[in-house]
Amino acid sequence: MHNLKAIVFDVFGTVVDWRGSVIAEGMTWGKAKGLDIDWAKFADCWRLGYQPAMDKVRKGAIPWTRLDDLHRMILDDLLQQFDITGISSEEKIWWNHVWRRLNPWPDSVEGLTRLKKKYIIAPLSNGNVALMASLAKFGGLPWDTILGAELVKHYKPDPETYLSAPYFLDLKPEEVMMCAAHVSDLRAARSHGLGTGFIYRPNEYGPGRLNMADKSKPGDFDVVSTSLVDLAQQLGA
Amino acid sequence: MHNLKAIVFDVFGTVVDWRGSVIAEGMTWGKAKGLDIDWAKFADCWRLGYQPAMDKVRKGAIPWTRLDDLHRMILDDLLQQFDITGISSEEKIWWNHVWRRLNPWPDSVEGLTRLKKKYIIAPLSNGNVALMASLAKFGGLPWDTILGAELVKHYKPDPETYLSAPYFLDLKPEEVMMCAAHVSDLRAARSHGLGTGFIYRPNEYGPGRLNMADKSKPGDFDVVSTSLVDLAQQLGA
Repeated sequence: MHNLKAIVFDVFGTVVDWRGSVIAEGMTWGKAKGLDIDWAKFADCWRLGYQPAMDKVRKGAIPWTRLDDLHRMILDDLLQQFDITGISSEEKIWWNHVWRRLNPWPDSVEGLTRLKKKYIIAPLSNGNVALMASLAKFGGLPWDTILGAELVKHYKPDPETYLSAPYFLDLKPEEVMMCAAHVSDLRAARSHGLGTGFIYRPNEYGPGRLNMADKSKPGDFDVVSTSLVDLAQQLGA
Repeated sequence: MHNLKAIVFDVFGTVVDWRGSVIAEGMTWGKAKGLDIDWAKFADCWRLGYQPAMDKVRKGAIPWTRLDDLHRMILDDLLQQFDITGISSEEKIWWNHVWRRLNPWPDSVEGLTRLKKKYIIAPLSNGNVALMASLAKFGGLPWDTILGAELVKHYKPDPETYLSAPYFLDLKPEEVMMCAAHVSDLRAARSHGLGTGFIYRPNEYGPGRLNMADKSKPGDFDVVSTSLVDLAQQLGA
């Protein structure tokens, strides 16, 4: 890790708590609207639609579509499934943009702020630039810039997305570390020569669902950590 | 300006003092190497090569080429012209990257920091992402993200570059303001529906060359200002 110059991050689940945030906002919104909905189930269903929606883009079934718009396609289905009616188009836009208002994990801002002093830090997410910019403003995430799927019109784990980080930063792949709570993301990044940093996020899928969260042991990746502050600590930042 | 959500910036001359910075580093480097060079002339020649080099890309005479690499093509010519020999390839890379080490104007960091609290701020420069990221680290420029020519492979004033800012930020053109010290840049931005903010930079081309700097009177653009702090003040940021 002596040559490390930049760290790029998965965001949903790694930097922000998408599930807790969607549930919390759903409960508030549902109460105001008089809706009786299982918001945990709603959040899980929304996220479950994520991979199949991106797959349509990856396989060319639909042209390049931003994640904001994929989220909206899934939402329109869910509103039917959950029998939620009488929602204005402004409300649908607002509710779809809940993905732009996700709370960072408690250690994220401190960890990123420390890492930023030593490295270039950027998201390398499947989320589009506007979504990432909004999340950063909402949660105070101090990115140096925003990289990711939209800049190359390829969703992870397509190689183009991983390779775009060293390309845009004019670095060698080994000078860039991918950091994620998901081992499949890190394995893909490693296969393209990037360094890898694992962060354990036991609560990504909910408090009682530890088994759903990816785990790693020391040595599985270049760094194995329990938080962004721990990662910064291990990297001397 | 009520709907303004983001401000994008020209960088060379508007946010950073390219000429003074290149001259200062040239003098230090030249002294160490025992070179007797007119560094002001060298800096001006380097910058004069900028538009013709981008024109080759704009007209398709050469494929998309990053500004770092155009700078290098111009530098290689200049080293010959100025009869500078015996430079190692590492030194050439380092010297070419002087464009990544340009000092901000004295008001830039304070002005951007204030504007960032109210707006999304990003460069919309012809400089590539790595160059912009390096400049930001070097000078402490607090961008939210880096936009610009490289993301769409079109140099300003090609329309694609201006239109990419509202596109990536998912905003209407009128919700984005282009800010520059150069009226041609602002006129082009305005022709694509963006707001415009002028900053007077009397010293861009050197202390005794006020006549070379663009001027504007109140009303020529949405905001006419004398510094980034003045711009922030006028926008209530």
